Amino acid sequence: AGVMAAWWRGTRALLLDVSGVLYDSGGDGGGAPIAGSVEAVRKIKASGLKLRFCTNETQATREKFVQKLQGFGFDISVDEVTAPAPAACRVLRERSLRPHLLVHDDVMPEFAEIDRTNPNCVVIGDAADNFTYANLNEAFRVLIGLQNPVLISLGRGRYYKETDGLKLDVGAYMKALEYACDVQAEIVGKPAKMFFESALAELGVQPQQAIMIGDDIVNDVGGAQRCGMRAVQVRTGKYRPSDENHPQVKPDAYVDNLAEAVDLILQQL
Amino acid sequence: AGVMAAWWRGTRALLLDVSGVLYDSGGDGGGAPIAGSVEAVRKIKASGLKLRFCTNETQATREKFVQKLQGFGFDISVDEVTAPAPAACRVLRERSLRPHLLVHDDVMPEFAEIDRTNPNCVVIGDAADNFTYANLNEAFRVLIGLQNPVLISLGRGRYYKETDGLKLDVGAYMKALEYACDVQAEIVGKPAKMFFESALAELGVQPQQAIMIGDDIVNDVGGAQRCGMRAVQVRTGKYRPSDENHPQVKPDAYVDNLAEAVDLILQQL
Repeated sequence: AGVMAAWWRGTRALLLDVSGVLYDSGGDGGGAPIAGSVEAVRKIKASGLKLRFCTNETQATREKFVQKLQGFGFDISVDEVTAPAPAACRVLRERSLRPHLLVHDDVMPEFAEIDRTNPNCVVIGDAADNFTYANLNEAFRVLIGLQNPVLISLGRGRYYKETDGLKLDVGAYMKALEYACDVQAEIVGKPAKMFFESALAELGVQPQQAIMIGDDIVNDVGGAQRCGMRAVQVRTGKYRPSDENHPQVKPDAYVDNLAEAVDLILQQL
Repeated sequence: AGVMAAWWRGTRALLLDVSGVLYDSGGDGGGAPIAGSVEAVRKIKASGLKLRFCTNETQATREKFVQKLQGFGFDISVDEVTAPAPAACRVLRERSLRPHLLVHDDVMPEFAEIDRTNPNCVVIGDAADNFTYANLNEAFRVLIGLQNPVLISLGRGRYYKETDGLKLDVGAYMKALEYACDVQAEIVGKPAKMFFESALAELGVQPQQAIMIGDDIVNDVGGAQRCGMRAVQVRTGKYRPSDENHPQVKPDAYVDNLAEAVDLILQQL
């Protein structure tokens, strides 16, 4: 804590990753909260620090996602969550893009207001069971048929852990379409700079006033740091000991879990 | 023909790609022969040139594949075919690798003699309908669980055309697993040098004595040329006019189809 004290003076806001920080996701059961995290969120809110939940979750609408977290006891509401699907909708509107969607059924309602006739781009999310051979081929055909193929990906995660084992994340399927169509996807979600910037704008703070807390060395820590924020990695969720020797990314601090991070930060304010 | 005469003197063997050169594949119907190709194969055999069929087909055993071509009228037998699955079996045996297979049901018999208990590598082919989310996750878990992950891919094609539309080929799914596990696949099949070399060995000729005829600018033409062979691209199958401006690969000649290639080559012998 002594080492860290110097740099986190002046902190006005915290950005929290959700899966692997607040809770461990799990198959159909929905997972379980990480010990101490419910109380840690309560302490942040009581402290007066601004708070935003910054997730790459695209298997549910924010409403459903927040309901699940409330069920675990978390003090969280929909308007505190920055997520890729709404960010993608902003991009689609700004650029008059009409998407073909390869996403999870449960996130479809986020795109309800978006024109999807005669698609001129493909949006891919963590579609899980919707990643069938037929659906992949359909998205591929739309993309390869476009004069200017635009592929928007809701994150670029490689895989994640559920109670019934590791599962391929959206990034793997994004790479398949990139290769087949010789295009490069545009990432919406972490680690995209624009995604963190929109979370900071929603908080009304500068990057140097905010700390990102996450379990993903590349998408949480690296992404936030490239934005000018400081970032702490928790040793929960997808954290692996080998992360501490990552060749490119070095967190500003490691903590065992969110509870420890919050206690350290609050005692220095 | 005048331009080409100089270099194809001394030709002793032809290597023919199959799909897009002999026939166009098609959905469940199995496709249709390309005009003039049945007769062209007959002429090659009558000429005394050595002949080998060199395919990346991995949706069937060589037996089934050859039966289909015989049904179209082609003079072809199993022992004239170089294909990725038998090449992969050689690699597996040489290196004591026990594969987890993500391949088409119909190519499974090629691996009947291979030990698959307690797998220490993954072999991926054009699995088509077997490219389910569950099967991809299963192959991924095997691969990420290995201390030295070995991924062997039967080709690296991006996509192919069937009568019911374009379909993703093995290369796209190979890229998904490469990304998820941070590994690089070893390619068995075209354009791998070892694959062409084994076809040349089976023919008993040197590379400079052989001509490859194919429709794929990268996997047929580029692969054969890197082996020291000359290569002709046919304007059938997956040929596109833009291939003639390919930044890396320039065929030794273009022909409209196999029939034209064979007539030109035979009249110069």
